[in-house]
Amino acid sequence: MITRDVALRRVSDALSQHSLDALVAVSPWNVAYTAGTSFFTQRTIPERLAIVVLTAKAEPAFIYCSIEDEHAREEGWVSDLRGYTEFQDKPMLLLAESLEEKGLSNGRIGIEMRFLVAKNYEELRSALPNVELVEADPIFDRMRASKSAEEVAFLERITYWTDQAIQTAFSACEVGDTERSIGDRMIVEANGNGATGLLHLVLATGPNLLKAHAAPGATRVEPRGMIRTDFGMYWGTYVSDVARTALVHPVSEQSNSTYRQLEQVHQKVIGAIRPGMPASEVYQRYKSGFAAAGLNFKMPHVGHSIGLTVHEYPMMHPFDQTPLEPGMVIMLEPGIIGDEGMYHTEDMILITEDGCRILGRSRDWGEPLIVGRDR
Amino acid sequence: MITRDVALRRVSDALSQHSLDALVAVSPWNVAYTAGTSFFTQRTIPERLAIVVLTAKAEPAFIYCSIEDEHAREEGWVSDLRGYTEFQDKPMLLLAESLEEKGLSNGRIGIEMRFLVAKNYEELRSALPNVELVEADPIFDRMRASKSAEEVAFLERITYWTDQAIQTAFSACEVGDTERSIGDRMIVEANGNGATGLLHLVLATGPNLLKAHAAPGATRVEPRGMIRTDFGMYWGTYVSDVARTALVHPVSEQSNSTYRQLEQVHQKVIGAIRPGMPASEVYQRYKSGFAAAGLNFKMPHVGHSIGLTVHEYPMMHPFDQTPLEPGMVIMLEPGIIGDEGMYHTEDMILITEDGCRILGRSRDWGEPLIVGRDR
Repeated sequence: MITRDVALRRVSDALSQHSLDALVAVSPWNVAYTAGTSFFTQRTIPERLAIVVLTAKAEPAFIYCSIEDEHAREEGWVSDLRGYTEFQDKPMLLLAESLEEKGLSNGRIGIEMRFLVAKNYEELRSALPNVELVEADPIFDRMRASKSAEEVAFLERITYWTDQAIQTAFSACEVGDTERSIGDRMIVEANGNGATGLLHLVLATGPNLLKAHAAPGATRVEPRGMIRTDFGMYWGTYVSDVARTALVHPVSEQSNSTYRQLEQVHQKVIGAIRPGMPASEVYQRYKSGFAAAGLNFKMPHVGHSIGLTVHEYPMMHPFDQTPLEPGMVIMLEPGIIGDEGMYHTEDMILITEDGCRILGRSRDWGEPLIVGRDR
Repeated sequence: MITRDVALRRVSDALSQHSLDALVAVSPWNVAYTAGTSFFTQRTIPERLAIVVLTAKAEPAFIYCSIEDEHAREEGWVSDLRGYTEFQDKPMLLLAESLEEKGLSNGRIGIEMRFLVAKNYEELRSALPNVELVEADPIFDRMRASKSAEEVAFLERITYWTDQAIQTAFSACEVGDTERSIGDRMIVEANGNGATGLLHLVLATGPNLLKAHAAPGATRVEPRGMIRTDFGMYWGTYVSDVARTALVHPVSEQSNSTYRQLEQVHQKVIGAIRPGMPASEVYQRYKSGFAAAGLNFKMPHVGHSIGLTVHEYPMMHPFDQTPLEPGMVIMLEPGIIGDEGMYHTEDMILITEDGCRILGRSRDWGEPLIVGRDR
């Protein structure tokens, strides 16, 4: 996890680099990054705002619903805590007050325009008509893109546990099991290692394999079939995200071969990744690799950075020209469409000084996991 | 669940009542209400927009990421489907195009200003500078406030299953069990009845009882203690939310009495609720009931409507003057602070023509559930 010192040094660098008087965090991810904690109600009750005000000189100020007092005190690192009474106080006015009190009524303020809702944005503009509001999302994105050593270690661990939960649930599965029972097992396994909530769970077999985002249901595993999952959990303020495909005994030659071709292209692209390569090139390499192998590929992206949220910057899509840098942690998740549906795999890589390294695999997925053998 | 006919009739009524040329839904809840489905990625990847454009004459138009093509076709009821290619197309420009094509470049358009982010709002304003944008959140809120018969039946069922999952997990629990194992059991029970994802899970025992939003951890159930949960699941596009407190054997007289006092005030307020009563009065009745019983009450609200999201309008707080109406479905969730921590209970009520009715209880919670007896 990010430490106070690293986070606040990066904030201070960003303020001077972008000539800003303040940065204002409002999303769960940027609140967690700059206050050391966030609240799950930011995701489930979005109107219950949490706001961190960051300036070069003053201590950060943390504005949040007073229901979360204990949580803010115990889990976060901000000492200037400003709990508001929900429905009575207006959080955007508390933000305006805090900026005024720091002498910034005419300041240049970076705020998350891709998270702050239009209504709150208008409230802030009316309260402080002379403030210059700057779109700070790309500034926060860049700030979080290169992970600290502690973040890399934590992301590696939670990715391993997520991968292991999938492996354990897949390995235990028998012909006749429902998608739902496999999904439940994955969640319980991850919770046992400290996961704190479900981010997403796609789990498909049989006819559902063709649906990109099928929720686990009552469909049962059949011989010669496939199971595909895309599984993400919260681990405190961080998230994990792993996709895998298993083959059901007795495996057809076609499935076995398609699975291996996907993994081969995947490993070949990973082997070619170097710092300085544009994110878009990673996409193009998968695309041409799949074309050469005659595989049906039509994803709009092949991966994304990860950390405090699931699609972090940079994204591996054709329009993101960001050069990869050492310290970036990226989920590569190529998928292709075979006769039976989508084959999907997903690995975490860390960009290093001279290439990249896979982190968090609980087994060698180059070899298909074959489930549902007779016991 | 809401049906196409009811939803689109309500949209049409709202358009004429508020003299709007179009209503634009962007939140998962209003997209689900007006298109018959929403996507879980709207919650996990908020920049992947989904938009429903609703006018009096034309069919609704549904703009969404083309990854969701099968889902939109199979689960929703909109026929004018407009999938966009992520990262390549700009969804707000597709929205502008759709409004232009309906001849509304100078129209009066209601849009969700409490959900649409500032950046997208500015994009829309630049694309259609002559459009009048109206804050439509309260219009959608009112539209969804009175539930249809199908919605009431579905909400009753998922609330029952959520309550039953809590009762089952609590009843199975023994001294020495961890919070996490109880929480896991609740999730698996709910999934077994068709839940599709976790909304929130607070689960506390021992010292964690004082934390409003404690996530389940490794703390173990101890004799004479308490277990408190606040548990919500997704069931397709709808949500459930139930809070309960159980006492651990051997129960202290103090805990037993505090629990019963909370339930007595709760039942007394429920017995007094009539259509026409302002939401704020429900709050005041709890407040004065707890004061009379000498209980420590300091919640900013005592409940909320529920449906496609967890805090729907109206809210039971001191500033919401909305008169309760037949068909509203409200979660009443009073909590008070005792010596050992927070006691919390939560029931669904349906406002009827002459009062209200509790729905979805799996047992009589007026009597405390005592767990961890010797077997």
